[in-house]
Amino acid sequence: MTAQRQLKVGILGATGTVGQRFIKLLAVHPYMRTHVLGASARSAGQKYIDVVKWKQVTRVPEDVAQMIIEACVVNERWKECDVIFSGLAEGDAGEIEASFRGAELPVFTNAKNHRREPSTPLIVPLVNPSHLSVIPHQQSLLGLKKGFIVTNANCSTTGIVIPLKALEDAFGPLDSIIVTTMQAISGAGYPGVASFDIFDNVVPYIGSEEEKMEWETSKILGGVTSDLKGFDLHAENPLRISASCNRVPVLEGHTECVSVSFKRRPPPSPEQVKEALRKYTCEVQTLGCPSAPKQAIVVHEEVDRPQPRLDRDDQDGAGVNVGRVRKCGVFDIKFVVLSNNVAIGAATSSLINAEIAYAKGMI
Amino acid sequence: MTAQRQLKVGILGATGTVGQRFIKLLAVHPYMRTHVLGASARSAGQKYIDVVKWKQVTRVPEDVAQMIIEACVVNERWKECDVIFSGLAEGDAGEIEASFRGAELPVFTNAKNHRREPSTPLIVPLVNPSHLSVIPHQQSLLGLKKGFIVTNANCSTTGIVIPLKALEDAFGPLDSIIVTTMQAISGAGYPGVASFDIFDNVVPYIGSEEEKMEWETSKILGGVTSDLKGFDLHAENPLRISASCNRVPVLEGHTECVSVSFKRRPPPSPEQVKEALRKYTCEVQTLGCPSAPKQAIVVHEEVDRPQPRLDRDDQDGAGVNVGRVRKCGVFDIKFVVLSNNVAIGAATSSLINAEIAYAKGMI
Amino acid sequence: MTAQRQLKVGILGATGTVGQRFIKLLAVHPYMRTHVLGASARSAGQKYIDVVKWKQVTRVPEDVAQMIIEACVVNERWKECDVIFSGLAEGDAGEIEASFRGAELPVFTNAKNHRREPSTPLIVPLVNPSHLSVIPHQQSLLGLKKGFIVTNANCSTTGIVIPLKALEDAFGPLDSIIVTTMQAISGAGYPGVASFDIFDNVVPYIGSEEEKMEWETSKILGGVTSDLKGFDLHAENPLRISASCNRVPVLEGHTECVSVSFKRRPPPSPEQVKEALRKYTCEVQTLGCPSAPKQAIVVHEEVDRPQPRLDRDDQDGAGVNVGRVRKCGVFDIKFVVLSNNVAIGAATSSLINAEIAYAKGMI
Amino acid sequence: MTAQRQLKVGILGATGTVGQRFIKLLAVHPYMRTHVLGASARSAGQKYIDVVKWKQVTRVPEDVAQMIIEACVVNERWKECDVIFSGLAEGDAGEIEASFRGAELPVFTNAKNHRREPSTPLIVPLVNPSHLSVIPHQQSLLGLKKGFIVTNANCSTTGIVIPLKALEDAFGPLDSIIVTTMQAISGAGYPGVASFDIFDNVVPYIGSEEEKMEWETSKILGGVTSDLKGFDLHAENPLRISASCNRVPVLEGHTECVSVSFKRRPPPSPEQVKEALRKYTCEVQTLGCPSAPKQAIVVHEEVDRPQPRLDRDDQDGAGVNVGRVRKCGVFDIKFVVLSNNVAIGAATSSLINAEIAYAKGMI
Repeated sequence: MTAQRQLKVGILGATGTVGQRFIKLLAVHPYMRTHVLGASARSAGQKYIDVVKWKQVTRVPEDVAQMIIEACVVNERWKECDVIFSGLAEGDAGEIEASFRGAELPVFTNAKNHRREPSTPLIVPLVNPSHLSVIPHQQSLLGLKKGFIVTNANCSTTGIVIPLKALEDAFGPLDSIIVTTMQAISGAGYPGVASFDIFDNVVPYIGSEEEKMEWETSKILGGVTSDLKGFDLHAENPLRISASCNRVPVLEGHTECVSVSFKRRPPPSPEQVKEALRKYTCEVQTLGCPSAPKQAIVVHEEVDRPQPRLDRDDQDGAGVNVGRVRKCGVFDIKFVVLSNNVAIGAATSSLINAEIAYAKGMI
Repeated sequence: MTAQRQLKVGILGATGTVGQRFIKLLAVHPYMRTHVLGASARSAGQKYIDVVKWKQVTRVPEDVAQMIIEACVVNERWKECDVIFSGLAEGDAGEIEASFRGAELPVFTNAKNHRREPSTPLIVPLVNPSHLSVIPHQQSLLGLKKGFIVTNANCSTTGIVIPLKALEDAFGPLDSIIVTTMQAISGAGYPGVASFDIFDNVVPYIGSEEEKMEWETSKILGGVTSDLKGFDLHAENPLRISASCNRVPVLEGHTECVSVSFKRRPPPSPEQVKEALRKYTCEVQTLGCPSAPKQAIVVHEEVDRPQPRLDRDDQDGAGVNVGRVRKCGVFDIKFVVLSNNVAIGAATSSLINAEIAYAKGMI
Repeated sequence: MTAQRQLKVGILGATGTVGQRFIKLLAVHPYMRTHVLGASARSAGQKYIDVVKWKQVTRVPEDVAQMIIEACVVNERWKECDVIFSGLAEGDAGEIEASFRGAELPVFTNAKNHRREPSTPLIVPLVNPSHLSVIPHQQSLLGLKKGFIVTNANCSTTGIVIPLKALEDAFGPLDSIIVTTMQAISGAGYPGVASFDIFDNVVPYIGSEEEKMEWETSKILGGVTSDLKGFDLHAENPLRISASCNRVPVLEGHTECVSVSFKRRPPPSPEQVKEALRKYTCEVQTLGCPSAPKQAIVVHEEVDRPQPRLDRDDQDGAGVNVGRVRKCGVFDIKFVVLSNNVAIGAATSSLINAEIAYAKGMI
Repeated sequence: MTAQRQLKVGILGATGTVGQRFIKLLAVHPYMRTHVLGASARSAGQKYIDVVKWKQVTRVPEDVAQMIIEACVVNERWKECDVIFSGLAEGDAGEIEASFRGAELPVFTNAKNHRREPSTPLIVPLVNPSHLSVIPHQQSLLGLKKGFIVTNANCSTTGIVIPLKALEDAFGPLDSIIVTTMQAISGAGYPGVASFDIFDNVVPYIGSEEEKMEWETSKILGGVTSDLKGFDLHAENPLRISASCNRVPVLEGHTECVSVSFKRRPPPSPEQVKEALRKYTCEVQTLGCPSAPKQAIVVHEEVDRPQPRLDRDDQDGAGVNVGRVRKCGVFDIKFVVLSNNVAIGAATSSLINAEIAYAKGMI
């Protein structure tokens, strides 16, 4: 870690919920530091501390507090950056990110706009960093040398694909997946869910969330085509997946109940599944990415864990927690996943994706 | 309803959560009235108002407040009753209820102890009142003339079997059911769940709840054997069912996400399912039971309903709410059920069961 | 109540939180019925049910659901109304209400805009209906015959002035009042408080609320000047009052801890205070206003009451609850008040104010 | 800090909420380490991990997890300890702690039992460590050489006495204090408050809490008598204090609204008060106690801070937060205090008290 080059980071959407998390994470990062803060035109020119509604439990880092906000328009200051993180809300995120890519900047985004693009990787860092191999094709399509866009997944997708990847690695392709989510209010940004709507309540609907989970899972668990020009969407063994998404009165941490069946007969036992989950390692750990969790999947034996309040901050929310691995009365196996939607489910994923790209010499 | 005989009611476990609900319901009942209150030996001899920790939002009815509590031991006062309701906790509920039955009293209980008995009906009033036909056999086994026990189901089972029954009536036997529950804290009695355990949290485990849901569903949706001596447990078309039960920070109202597949091919469409649910009527409505809901199943078209806080008190919680009826990516159909766990999921079920038995001349 | 004239009611701000409450209350009112619904220009011309985000636990009344919304601009339809209720948000409430008054319509408003006007009554119906005697002066100033504006108080003010009025009636003028509020989120309208801000939290600040409580209390507890042209603001015995306002994670019901000292020495004992609160009656009860509570102030003897969840719906929230009346170590007496901020704290106050005006022949 | 003697620590009540906090704090302490764990007789002999219901968000320290629990009875193992911390519940805490003191062990306790003893210090470490000077008298009364008991204050008292001490230091004696608390559920231990009692609710009563706050404040803010044999209870300028205590649905962090008047005329301005609070330093900081906060009192200028969720973990909850310092309409000054009831309000206070005693050579 000695004498490492310091990367200059620009943050698009720096005043929003995800932007604040990037700032918080970078404040203790070994080799990345916040260099430019981007927000709406009407915030530009003002000090960050005077504009932001800071909602983190740690204070705004002193140096960031005094930075002057830039508009999200490429200029010389932005061009000094080595990496761009985007915490933009979906509205115009797509165009802004494309313009930064066009200026030869590598963009790692939490927004959904580019996720379905045929040449844009959708990467959960503990699952499919191999999808970065499509970046050269993305660049050649656009005539770019250094600029590219990498997206990370929807927060509820992220939680399940990590254990599902571990299961496919160990036991071969999955056949069917039924998942019901209980998602935290922080997943909706700020101001997000009105307290009057969610106090003492469950809202059994999150707009377009179920479609995202069902579609993204196949792209992430699938591979790269042999010509390195796209993604196979798990085509050889198409996944059947059904998601039911709910908002519950919890601040952070998405809990998901998952039932799966395998192609292979007989299916693995709960004990074999637990062992496979525990042993699962991935490339980010080999690459030594500093924000990666030591243990990708923490498996709980207690009968009533994981729980969001007790487990969401384990490993700073960079891993996932799995518990209650048991036989399913209809499918083969069922279990509970708990993932931190504001960490591995959002900013932390973008950050580790950038660490991977850096380790591979792409930045 | 004119000149109707007034039924005298005894309540076992009258100071508990379910007991309080019985008292509240009877205070406005057209032909049943509270006659004896039973509680633990150490409360016996004291005024109800001096012992109870009343947790209802209406006040203790004046006459009940002044009643002297009896021990849960059959005596002359108890024998004056026409009906016994039991809100006893599971511990010694079984023996106490059996002793009241043995004294020729009809017992309607919310406790789980007798639910699996081969000659004891497990009745959700909007589903299987026909199971009362086994009562003569129960009595003959025990040499009784008037005494019997009827149980009602676990609160989370109750919510799903009502729409499932409507679906089987309309479209023939179901094949597979996967359900994930988000259950309210009031389902755990009082003091029940510690606030420290459930604030800002989900607990993905409720002791033995999943087994109850999986087993009870087959008994309730199944029929009575042709000799009227027992239950067929849906044996001709065995149900495959898998439940995942969670506690969420909601006061009242269990929300359940259900995916089902039918035996019949092709399966019904979402529109056909909604129509069948809306049209579903049951014997309690024909019999004119005063506590039965006008509409057994309320089907919501809004994309984000039902919700516990907004819908749990519709029809005083005596019906169920279904919403988000749509195709399932793995099974045929999925939907959301919301049922009031302290109404149709508990005391209200016992009460309507007694109304049915009364209408049929069994009391 | 026989053969009573039916009053036609127009509702300004009918889609908002307070407007919804007016509709709910009028649906069961003996002699008022909803006649016109007013909302923003962009909602005008559409059916109520297609525009409103209905957040009440009862359904939209059938006839109201199908009504076509009008803009909040006086026209022939509005002029058919006998009474106008305003649930407008503060922004342009002042001007709109003035224009309706100018069209000779009696306006009862929950908005703050006109509360401090020297000729406009600020009436808490259980406290100072006598302030209606200033209406003729208000009309003569504006050259009006039938039109006028009556305001009701801020929700947190309403809770305390009722018991304070009872104390002044019984024991003479108060000297000092220190009050700390714990206010429900529903006091902030919809969407109001973001869930992310108030979950697992207390916000010790509500914009301008403390000033409102301190100022409004003197106007309400004070009298009318002898020329019936204004209000004396309790000038003879100026009140010293200090309020600290907090938002807490509760849906409905404001809890307030109050310490008071009296001018008179020796001060009354807690027992005398409780008796005075219990015996307190007011003009609305004599006048037979149908929405008035039977018991203006319910006094609790239990050591831990009132509590918002258990007591806010008593008497449909039209009275107030007082508990823990005891000696104060600094002042004379302290106690806890619980009032329903969406009932007596808002729409119910406007409604009873109109019932008073009607009973007095002013409508 | 080099070559420091390691202190062996015994923890009475090690499985309870406060006991768990001691373990968590000691796991990262520079010179104290957990040596013996004490719990009830029925837990004795078992491994800590097999008995404890661990409710912290960090995991049980590995070495502690495997320790065998001792009964809370002095034996050779306990006698090896340099310090005893007690997180015992009030029941028999008094006798057990006295027996450990009798065995010449220094006991620092969070329990209330000994707080009112005339020769036992009641110490809030950021306020009155000088009260340790009474320890020699306590020992001489009991014929002890090393054993003693030091208590720390009730969690709600702790929050206010820190700023009150700063004010008396700067502006002379206070005259009157009126305080209303909004206390977190974690203040009630485990299982503590039933979720059914506090969800969507405020409970305006906490048994004997108001008396504790009113009495303890005078002992803590007062001095030591000149003969070093007792406490003057602020006798020269007796404090008038009135507390109203409420439980609110918050997990951690007590919020308190305080109004004060000073003896001195004219009183200080809000700006002077803020400056005095910010500048306040105390002996623990001079002594270099490792668990003491850098800044005893953090003063907020934002209009809506402090808030429990955002501010309770600042400085690991070892300091207090004050905000909204402003004029009071009745007294001189009012403000809001936020203190972490499970940190400075409980275990952290005991810990710093021991650090002080160690720094002074008393251990």
